[in-house]
Amino acid sequence: MALVPDNTLITGTPEEGRELALKMARLVVKATQPEEATRARLRPGYAESADSLIAVAHVVAVEFATIAAANDYWRNS
Amino acid sequence: MALVPDNTLITGTPEEGRELALKMARLVVKATQPEEATRARLRPGYAESADSLIAVAHVVAVEFATIAAANDYWRNS
Amino acid sequence: MALVPDNTLITGTPEEGRELALKMARLVVKATQPEEATRARLRPGYAESADSLIAVAHVVAVEFATIAAANDYWRNS
Amino acid sequence: MALVPDNTLITGTPEEGRELALKMARLVVKATQPEEATRARLRPGYAESADSLIAVAHVVAVEFATIAAANDYWRNS
Amino acid sequence: MALVPDNTLITGTPEEGRELALKMARLVVKATQPEEATRARLRPGYAESADSLIAVAHVVAVEFATIAAANDYWRNS
Amino acid sequence: MALVPDNTLITGTPEEGRELALKMARLVVKATQPEEATRARLRPGYAESADSLIAVAHVVAVEFATIAAANDYWRNS
Repeated sequence: MALVPDNTLITGTPEEGRELALKMARLVVKATQPEEATRARLRPGYAESADSLIAVAHVVAVEFATIAAANDYWRNS
Repeated sequence: MALVPDNTLITGTPEEGRELALKMARLVVKATQPEEATRARLRPGYAESADSLIAVAHVVAVEFATIAAANDYWRNS
Repeated sequence: MALVPDNTLITGTPEEGRELALKMARLVVKATQPEEATRARLRPGYAESADSLIAVAHVVAVEFATIAAANDYWRNS
Repeated sequence: MALVPDNTLITGTPEEGRELALKMARLVVKATQPEEATRARLRPGYAESADSLIAVAHVVAVEFATIAAANDYWRNS
Repeated sequence: MALVPDNTLITGTPEEGRELALKMARLVVKATQPEEATRARLRPGYAESADSLIAVAHVVAVEFATIAAANDYWRNS
Repeated sequence: MALVPDNTLITGTPEEGRELALKMARLVVKATQPEEATRARLRPGYAESADSLIAVAHVVAVEFATIAAANDYWRNS
């Protein structure tokens, strides 16, 4: 299973970097809980919990920090 | 849906960088829970929980760290 | 509403940088819960919870990391 | 017990770096709770808890940040 | 009240840097909950909770990261 | 009490750096809860809680980030 789509942290824009951050966070969850049925069962619970949503946002922020640094913050794009 | 408003991390001032951090955090929540009605229902709960508010502040601090680095901390502005 | 007092991350000393970190964290809470009455009601709860106080300390530590980097750690002051 | 497989943070690709991040996080859990039977007993619980899965994703994000920096974000690969 | 003892992040050794990290974390708690009696009352609770102790260790780790960077990791001492 | 064994962040290998990260995290817990009897009493609780183990892994990841940077990621070793 791929943990890093296209096997690169380099993206064309911040928006694409942000999408990559979301995907990479989800792929770790998928690697830890590979059963699709279980993940589907958990989804309503956390998507209706403010604290879970904030926790997701936190993880994405940390992933994005790495991706943004990898792209030198897209300063030259 | 846009995850990064204007598709750039570069802002004119720290204040605008801070506003961007807040927006980016909210947009991840929106991407994870796209139903406006559900998000509206969750709002009173976390906005009246000290621990949720502190968790929001934590996420914004992490987002802002990235934005501040992208702008070289606005040292030359 | 100002999210970054004086719209700068640059301070004269580490002590002032630390004060700024505390203020910036509080201003995000204020932006997320603008009602003064609600915030006042929440205060006793988290100020008497060890875990909430530790969580506040965590947020301040993250904000301060950014401010300290912005000031090159006040090495030349 | 090895805490860092092959005793290096250098990997050929982001994908391998991500795998290393997962392994390193698991090896700390193993060092803290060395009994295989206990870890096996805990697995169903956290693999079916959305909040635990998000917490795992958070740890992997932090480990990966270090590994990505060590590899200069695989910019030249 | 001082938030940064001696108003500097520079220390002679890693050990002193670590002590500073602990002090700085405690001073934020003190600033948020200034009543000595309340803090004393909270102490047994968190000092006998494994999760609170881990949370304290987390905050100290974040503070220390900043102090270590400020001291260029004491490479030349 | 020593908070940083040998008073240095420099280690020969990533493996030793990882061991140092674990030790440094434990020494902060020890400094916050100096009673050996209390720490021994808490151990079974957190070593059999998946969430506590993940939290420990998180702290170690943050400590290791600092140690890895201090050693320039052992790139030249």
